[in-house]
Parts: sequence; C-alpha cells; structure tokens
Amino acid sequence: MNQVLTPMLEDPLSGVSEKAASMLANRKPNYSLEQPFYNDERIFKLDIREIFEKEWIFAGMTCEIPKKGNFITLNIGDNPIVLVRGAEDKVHGFFNVCRHRGSRLCVTEKGKVAKLVCPYHKWTYELDGRLIFAGSDMGESFDLNAHSLKPVNVKVAGGYIFVCLAETPPDIEEFTQSLEHYLEPYDTENLKVAVQSDIVEDCNWKLVIENNRECYHCNGSHPELLNSLQQFDDTDDPLATPEYKDLVARKQKDWDDMRVPYTLKYFGKRNRMTRTPLLDGVVSMTMDGKPACSKLMGRITSPDMGSLRILHLPNSWNHWQGDHTIVFRVLPLGPQKTLVTTKWLVHKDAVEGVDYDPENMRKVWDATNYQDKVLAEENQRGINSIAYQPGPYSETFEFGVIDFVNWYSERIIENTRKS
Amino acid sequence: MNQVLTPMLEDPLSGVSEKAASMLANRKPNYSLEQPFYNDERIFKLDIREIFEKEWIFAGMTCEIPKKGNFITLNIGDNPIVLVRGAEDKVHGFFNVCRHRGSRLCVTEKGKVAKLVCPYHKWTYELDGRLIFAGSDMGESFDLNAHSLKPVNVKVAGGYIFVCLAETPPDIEEFTQSLEHYLEPYDTENLKVAVQSDIVEDCNWKLVIENNRECYHCNGSHPELLNSLQQFDDTDDPLATPEYKDLVARKQKDWDDMRVPYTLKYFGKRNRMTRTPLLDGVVSMTMDGKPACSKLMGRITSPDMGSLRILHLPNSWNHWQGDHTIVFRVLPLGPQKTLVTTKWLVHKDAVEGVDYDPENMRKVWDATNYQDKVLAEENQRGINSIAYQPGPYSETFEFGVIDFVNWYSERIIENTRKS
Amino acid sequence: MNQVLTPMLEDPLSGVSEKAASMLANRKPNYSLEQPFYNDERIFKLDIREIFEKEWIFAGMTCEIPKKGNFITLNIGDNPIVLVRGAEDKVHGFFNVCRHRGSRLCVTEKGKVAKLVCPYHKWTYELDGRLIFAGSDMGESFDLNAHSLKPVNVKVAGGYIFVCLAETPPDIEEFTQSLEHYLEPYDTENLKVAVQSDIVEDCNWKLVIENNRECYHCNGSHPELLNSLQQFDDTDDPLATPEYKDLVARKQKDWDDMRVPYTLKYFGKRNRMTRTPLLDGVVSMTMDGKPACSKLMGRITSPDMGSLRILHLPNSWNHWQGDHTIVFRVLPLGPQKTLVTTKWLVHKDAVEGVDYDPENMRKVWDATNYQDKVLAEENQRGINSIAYQPGPYSETFEFGVIDFVNWYSERIIENTRKS
Ligand code: FES
Ligand code: FES
Ligand code: FES
Ligand SMILES: [Fe+3]
Ligand SMILES: [Fe+3]
Ligand SMILES: [Fe+3]
Repeated sequence: MNQVLTPMLEDPLSGVSEKAASMLANRKPNYSLEQPFYNDERIFKLDIREIFEKEWIFAGMTCEIPKKGNFITLNIGDNPIVLVRGAEDKVHGFFNVCRHRGSRLCVTEKGKVAKLVCPYHKWTYELDGRLIFAGSDMGESFDLNAHSLKPVNVKVAGGYIFVCLAETPPDIEEFTQSLEHYLEPYDTENLKVAVQSDIVEDCNWKLVIENNRECYHCNGSHPELLNSLQQFDDTDDPLATPEYKDLVARKQKDWDDMRVPYTLKYFGKRNRMTRTPLLDGVVSMTMDGKPACSKLMGRITSPDMGSLRILHLPNSWNHWQGDHTIVFRVLPLGPQKTLVTTKWLVHKDAVEGVDYDPENMRKVWDATNYQDKVLAEENQRGINSIAYQPGPYSETFEFGVIDFVNWYSERIIENTRKS
Repeated sequence: MNQVLTPMLEDPLSGVSEKAASMLANRKPNYSLEQPFYNDERIFKLDIREIFEKEWIFAGMTCEIPKKGNFITLNIGDNPIVLVRGAEDKVHGFFNVCRHRGSRLCVTEKGKVAKLVCPYHKWTYELDGRLIFAGSDMGESFDLNAHSLKPVNVKVAGGYIFVCLAETPPDIEEFTQSLEHYLEPYDTENLKVAVQSDIVEDCNWKLVIENNRECYHCNGSHPELLNSLQQFDDTDDPLATPEYKDLVARKQKDWDDMRVPYTLKYFGKRNRMTRTPLLDGVVSMTMDGKPACSKLMGRITSPDMGSLRILHLPNSWNHWQGDHTIVFRVLPLGPQKTLVTTKWLVHKDAVEGVDYDPENMRKVWDATNYQDKVLAEENQRGINSIAYQPGPYSETFEFGVIDFVNWYSERIIENTRKS
Repeated sequence: MNQVLTPMLEDPLSGVSEKAASMLANRKPNYSLEQPFYNDERIFKLDIREIFEKEWIFAGMTCEIPKKGNFITLNIGDNPIVLVRGAEDKVHGFFNVCRHRGSRLCVTEKGKVAKLVCPYHKWTYELDGRLIFAGSDMGESFDLNAHSLKPVNVKVAGGYIFVCLAETPPDIEEFTQSLEHYLEPYDTENLKVAVQSDIVEDCNWKLVIENNRECYHCNGSHPELLNSLQQFDDTDDPLATPEYKDLVARKQKDWDDMRVPYTLKYFGKRNRMTRTPLLDGVVSMTMDGKPACSKLMGRITSPDMGSLRILHLPNSWNHWQGDHTIVFRVLPLGPQKTLVTTKWLVHKDAVEGVDYDPENMRKVWDATNYQDKVLAEENQRGINSIAYQPGPYSETFEFGVIDFVNWYSERIIENTRKS
C-alpha cells in the first residue's frame, strides 16, 4: 500500500528487506539475533511493515465493546485503528482515518457513539463504515460510496479480537476454532476489565517477547510471581519434575469432570495453548495464591482451574484462571520503545470493593511487569554495544525463545518475498 | 548556500527535490497532499530550504523594536535571526551568528543594546552589522571588513517586518504598498504588544495553515470565536448570506466616511487582505463582542471597524480591529512540530489594568488556538497511517485551503527548479 | 568490528569516512571546522567509531575502585564498559555485556561484587572475565572458555584509568610514564571522590573541548574562576606578563625544594602537562583562594603547589592543587548532546564536615561549568545556521583550540585510512 501512496520518494527500506531476510536465512540457529534486529531504525520499520501490518495482531477483547456503538482504539505502528460494535453484535474494524482530510475519527481510547463522526468537519460514517454525510456541499460529482472508511480484517474468537491490516490475511482458522473451544467455559462476552496497566519499556518489542518466552530468569527476578507460577507447563518439558507430573494428572481428572479442555496445542509456532496447574494449593496469581475475585467467570464453579495459558505471536500472552484473567498486549512504538498493556478481566457482574479489590488483583503482575521491564531494558543496553554478538539460547530453558525467533525469521523471510 | 558549506558530504536531499516537485506537479487537483508532505523528514527539510529559506517570512512588528538598539530574535528553521533598530529608525536583519566561531549573538527573545556584542569572545558589531572589534590580537592580516554580520533581506511595511534569507528575494512590492495603505489608520509605529502566547503544535506546519484557511470546522469547534466571527469575508463567497451582504453595504458606507480601505485584494495566492464586518452588533473578537481596549489605535475614532484580515503565506494571518489587533506567526520546528505565536497589539499608550485587561483580551483566541491545535494534531495522527490517501477539498468551504496548497506546490516546483 | 556484526545491512557511514577525511585534509588551517563536524548525525557516528572507539579514553580514577571487587561503569558511545579491581590490585576492563543474550552485567555506576553475575540468567564471570557458570544446562558442546567477557585495553598511570576499545591501541607509554612521575607526590591510590557533578550540555563534544582549550572567553564569563586562575600557564605564551614570569620563577624554586615536577611537556598534541602558579597569594581554586581541604594529598606539605594541569585528548582536563584535585571527563551522547562529569578528589582520610566542606569545594567549578555550558550551547545554536562558515581562530588566544582541531583532524584522517 505504501508504494502507491508515496510513488516517487525513494522507499527508505529499499534494499533493506532483502538484506534482512538474507541475514535471517543465514543466521546461526538457536542463537540470539544480530544487533540491528534489536536496534536499527530500518529493521524496526521492516518489522512494522512485514509483521505488524501483515500478521494477525491481538487488539482487544469483545467484552470491552459490549454494546452497539461501543468502540476501542489502538495504534499498530503509525496506524490508528478503531474497533466498533455494529448491528447484530458484529465487530467492525477500520483504519481510524477520515476519508476527507485524514483526521482521526475516534480520539479516545474507548467510548460509545451512534455514528462515527469526524471531529474536524463532521463527515459522518455508519458503524459499518459507510459515509452518510460529507458536509452540505461537496459538489455534484462527489460519490459518498467511494469514501467509506477503509476496513481492516477482523477475527473474533473466544472473546479475543484480532486484526490484520494486510489485504490477504494469513489463515488463522484452526487456532481460532480451538480458542472458541478452550474459552467456552468463561462466557467471554460477559466479562469486563477490572484493572488496566500501560507501561512503556525502553527496548525493542522482540526483547519483550523473548523475555516472556522463558522462565530461565524467573528464579532470580520474580519472587511475587513464583508464589503461584509453575516454571513449566508441559509434562514433556525437560525441567518438569515428578511432583509436577503427579499434580497434572490429578488436576486433569478434575478438569475432565468439569468438561474444560487442557491439552497442549501448537498452531505452527505462532500459537500455543494449554491448561497447567499453578503451584499445589494455589488457585490464582495473587500474592497469597487465593482468588482475587469471589465471583467466578462463566460456568466455572471452582476457582481451582489452574491457568489456561494462551500465546499469540507476535504480540500477546494470557493467563486464564477461575476467578480472573490476565491478558497482555505488546505494541511497538520505536526501535527501542514498546508499549505493554495488561488487562485484568473478571465477570461483568463482579462488584469492585465487594467481589474484588483491584489493588490486590494487580499486585503480582505489576511487580512482575516492572521486573521484566528492567531486565529487557538492560538487555537492550548491552546489545547496543559493538561488543554484542549473538549468544546461544539454552535448548532446555529457552526453547520458547528459540520458537519465537524462528517464527519471526520465517515471517520476515516469507512476507518480504511476497511483497 | 548549503552546497558551499558542506561540499563533500552527500546532500541528504539529493534526489528528493526533483521527486517532490514531480509528485506535486502530478497531484490530483483540489485534493489534500500525499502523506510524505505532512510527515517525511526529507520533505520537511525541503520545505525549510525551498520555502522558509527562500520566501518572505513574517518575523515581527516594528513596534516591538521602537528605539535604536532594540532587537528581537527568532529562528527560521535552524537559522537564528536578529532584527535590530539601527540609526535613522532603519530595521536591520542579520543571521544571529558571530563571524568568529559562530556563537549566537543575541541570546534573548528581545532586548536593547548599544552594539551587538558576542557573548563568547566579545567580538563587537555596529547595529548595521559592521565588525568593529575582534579582540586585541587577531594578527596583522585580519580584515574586519571581511567579517561583517551576514545580512538577511528585510522589508518593512505597515508595521510588519518580513525577512527573506535568499540572496534574491521574490518581488513583494505590490503587496507591501497596499499593506502601507490599509494600515495607515493604525499608526503602527505606536503600538505595543499587550499579550503574547507561544504554543507548540505536534503537527506539520502545513496542517496549521490548512486549518486556518477554512471555517468549515468552525461550527463544531469554536464556540468562543463564533461570538464575533463571520464565517466568510467576501460577498462573492458562495456561503455569503443576504444579511451579510446588507451588513457589508452598511459598514462600507461608514468606512468610506472614515477613509479606511476595505476592498478585498489578492496578491497572487500569497497575500490577501480585506476588511469585513464582525457579527452585527459586535465590534471586537472578545467573549462579549465589546472592545477589549478602551484606547483605540492610531487615528481610529470608533471601535466599530469590523476586522481587517491579512494573510501572508507561508506563515501569518492577522485580525485588525478598532481597539486591538491580533497577529499570528507560524514557524516550523520539525516534520510534526510547529510553533504558533500570537501577539495582541494595542495603542502604545494604553495602560494595562486601566484601558485593557490582558486576560479578557486573550480569551477568545487562547480558546480558539487550543481547539485548532487539537484538530491539527488529530489530523496529523490520521495522516500518518498507511490508510491515509489524499481526500477531496470542498470547493465551497475550503477554497482557501486549495489556494494555500496550490501556492505551496507552485513555490516548491519553481524554487527547486531554480536551485 | 561493526562490519562483522552487521554483514549485510548497508553501513550508514559508507562513503562518509572518506568524504569527512577529505574535508578535513582540505580545510582552511586555523579556522573552525565546517558545520557538519558539529551537527551532522553521520559525522557524530564517525567520531564515535574513529575517535571514541579507537583512541585512549579517560574513564575514571583507580581510587574509585580501591578494593578487589569494586567496579565503576561508563558508556563510551553505545558501549557500556565496566572497570573492576581484580586479584593483585589489577584493574580489568570489559565490555559490560553478557555473552549469553547480551544484557548489561553491572547496572549501577559503581559497586562491589565477588563475581560478575548477569542480572538476567545469572551467568557468572570471574573478575578477570572468565565465564564460570552458565546455568545448569547449556548442552554438552557448550564451551565456557569461548564465552569470556570481551576485554578492553586498560592503561593505569598516576591514578588515571584509560581504556581503548580498539584491538590495537595507539602508543601512550611516553605520556603515562610522565604521568606517573608528575603524580608521584599525590599518592593517587589513596584519594577519594569528595563531590561529583554530571551535566549534560546540548552541544557537540568538540565544542566542549574547544571551549576548554582557550581562556579568551574567561574575562567576560568566569568571575569566580578568575579569583584564582592565571589565564595562561606557559612563560612562552604570548600573553604572559613579566609579573607572571617572576611568579613562576619564585614558585619553581619552592617546587624544586619539594621535589615536585613542573616542566611543561607535550606528547604530540594529545597530551600536555605543566605545573603553573595560581594568582599570587592564592593556593586553590576556591572562591576565596584558600584551601578547600585541610588535609593535603600524599606527601604534599604545603597547599601552595600552584596547579598541575593535565590535558588528555579527546576527553579530559585536570587541575591538581595541593589540597584537592579536579578531574573532568567528557563523553559524547549525541551530535548535540554531551555529558561532562567533574570529580573533586581529596585525601581518602579527609573527613567531610571536618577537613572539607563539599559545597565550598565545588562552588567555583560548578559556576564555571554552568557558564561554559551556556557558551557552548549558544555556539552550537549559531553553527546550526546556513549562515555559519568557519571563522578564524586567534593564534595568540586560541592556539590550544587550533591544537585540538588539528589533533582531531589528524586522528580522523589517519584512523579512517586504517579501517
Ligand atoms: S477530516 Fe474528517 S471531516 Fe474533514
Ligand atoms: S564566537 Fe563570537 S566572539 Fe568568538
Ligand atoms: S543475558 Fe546474561 S545470563 Fe542471560
Ligand atoms: Fe519475566
Ligand atoms: Fe480554527
Ligand atoms: Fe570556560
């Protein structure tokens, strides 16, 4: 799309895509990436163009826009996006850009509107994007139908809203069907955001994801998290202990009784989901391991559900417990600047101050997020040196990082080839 | 001039000028510009080089430097400029750059000096720019005359000071002569700045000007302004109502009696001036429509003068009323950063707290400026998206924007061709 | 080293080195540099690569890491460096970058450790850089010895620690031997930092050094400094007065009696050292000229030692007095951003509040640093203009600046040729 819009100025990425793809194709397997992938302005733009403007990106939850006219906004790279609930509960996604002179339409993070009205000159769009008013006098030849909002691809499943800015999005059906299945017990339409945190980390977005994809660093860094978290979620994990395997066997019996899915599934390297127990005796990621919300979600009757972990590359990981859910969204802001949004979800009828205390609920992941921010920023600082050279990932502890880096490399190689 | 100073490093704009000029030559008429004209770093530099370093730029008012030795400073792009009143009331303009090692000379926004003395090593220049002291020992071969301050072209008319940094400035005589004529009633040498506001808008300078060049957005955004402002200033405006035309006819009779000019004049697309009534019964751009200053300017005897509107592209618009005047100056700071300075002028003998209350005087345009800042910044945010594409201007409501964009395009095309 | 790490992306400096070297080779002698040497992003990167990553850089003082395990950190360009005292008092220098995934190891400005332990996954290095622990499972083929910390060259002399990031550092022996000799009286291992100041100046690092290399600007700008400072330090200085020469003769007799060296020595243009009297009757750079610390350094018995001035290009100047010492370190942060660190040193047994008052001690140079910051920033602002052109240095007042600029030019020309 870019080429059409700037037909004549030299593309600042000309030559970069091929070279980056070739560097990735020839990289040392199971080693961290070369320096420019973490700090070069050109590679950052490439990541936006080839990953964030082409892959499915986690944007938000359907429960954030429960009613017709509710909207949320976000930025994917430099692209303001709006997601709005239209007729018949349909979720529409648009570039949040007026077709007149290009103003943002919705200028708040969330809200409710009857129509999408541009704040500048009041051009007005239906919730499905059709332009219905363009001022009193645009001339006879003006064609309303040619000036609808530009849509983005939207995929809704299990309460998640994914968007894809490419014209031809990658196939994601198999994953979203499983997502529906795994999240059926939670009645995801009837949740709400109890707390939200937005932090900016001074590091490349891939360092945020790499940090998340291993628990090799947990012991030394995350005392609060380790009150509840198992450091592995797979009985085939080389680190899994006999005690963990026993616990899994016991819990899976309970979950079978409750008819909730738990099997570990991979969808390529992009997605992964599994239900895993928390520490024995612990039911929620809180400081004391007890539930943070007394009203449970959906058809869930016991808080002792372990944690349903869901990974969506490039930009989300999630923990679904019995009493509350934590969803994470990563959005790149610059070569060394990344926004990490955390939302804690509860049943929509849970009452703040009665059923849950938001300060208590957020404590563990506020601490953990801050610790991870420091780790990732220090990682960035060292990588920026001429002395940095790719180092070896541990196949035992860091297979998740290896998977992420391999996924990233494949996407860059394949997507640049197509474009 | 740049080429001479950096003879060997590749010009970061090499290739850009031609391509930008060609994009402008081939653009869709009456549509907004392509994205890079609003956010590309290279086009920003091109705008500085081809517009702000070559065209006449509004810098300040003569009444700000009433006496010999008074100076004001400003930055045009990266160029610090000083304007100083010299002998025989002459206004001199210089690059505010010492010929020794390049320090700025005058480091405050305004002041009064006997000579221009460099703060670094005290090289000393006459108010006409001649170097008269270069330390006690620069060697025998040193030639004071070869180290005068570098002058900029200065044009003074009707109290306005325009500067041009090019060696051969464009012709501006016809406009400045009319300016003298239209401003004769105001005795512009005997005004003073009652209030000043400097705001930084996070958007391209052209979006500030586009915003100013139409009142299509006024209804929805400017309640304070619409207490006084007519949304058109020309009886030939397609929007002009019969009531407006009647009002104009009545007022012009009064103005004829007062011998003040009012006819709408264009000077190419660069300048425009006209006197137009405010709303019926309103005499000044204040919250209540009443004068903000009880002492009138110059030979004016009634506050009921309507508003003399003056446009100077690329960087100024102005409202001259009977009691006070509002001048606006736009200076680009970056691809998405622009300084907007507003000055409210009154008769120099008007007494603050007696004849005028500055807080009252500034209220309407402080509110309006802030509203326009938000509109222009939201415009920028949408334009930055890959989804942005040039949209159609309304020929009825946005002819002023069309004129500006056409002027801009012509200047870029013509000025790059010459350089 | 860079070429190896980013084999495929175009080097953003390709073509720049040769052009910059050629501009310097053809520049007008005894004139300030062309504009891009003071503000161009590319030349800034060139300065980092060719000067700060290849020359000896003053990093800190040995007395800051008195005991085994003590460390200090600093950034040279984007390179985090750690200096640590190891076994047998040896000072080790490393890129402060973990060989696993590249995290910084030591994340504070100073501290004390038993081993160098990475905060991320606890890889552990001996104080001599050898990796001794890399987690519990890096696989059988993992070779600890291949993952030692990358060392930097370290040179210790007279209490100074210099580092060089190049593989083959320039010869500095002659200078460091003299440094040992001149600093013998001060027992530099037994000093401590009494006060430290870190200021960021919004100007190119070379403007900081140019500012320091002349006292042409002192009269107009440094009232506090001129309470103690002689504006020259060489009886052959064209500005030296008969009174100064007399004073030197008298003082040198005293210094001979004390067996302290004073002769002016040059080591190429890179280094210079000399002992010179302060103003007659003054013994220290304080507001009243009296000592700031009652406990003298080393074997010094009288505070009346004048000032031992030491210059080390590209990044340090120093004043050694009888009672306290002031060391300055300059580190570039960006084309127009520079960190200037000042440390005031005293005998390590001097007691704060008893032997010295830090607020009193820092007063003169805090004032002077601030004045110089303003001068250098105003210099930068003027240089950024298209009107700036290199101006003539005074051979009488600014020979030190000429020497610096010549040294810089030679290093760029020679180092780019080699790389
Ligand atoms: S930009 Fe949206 S209506 Fe004008
Ligand atoms: S820079 Fe102006 S006198 Fe030196
Ligand atoms: S980055 Fe240092 S141990 Fe992993
Ligand atoms: Fe973590
Ligand atoms: Fe407006
Ligand atoms: Fe100084």
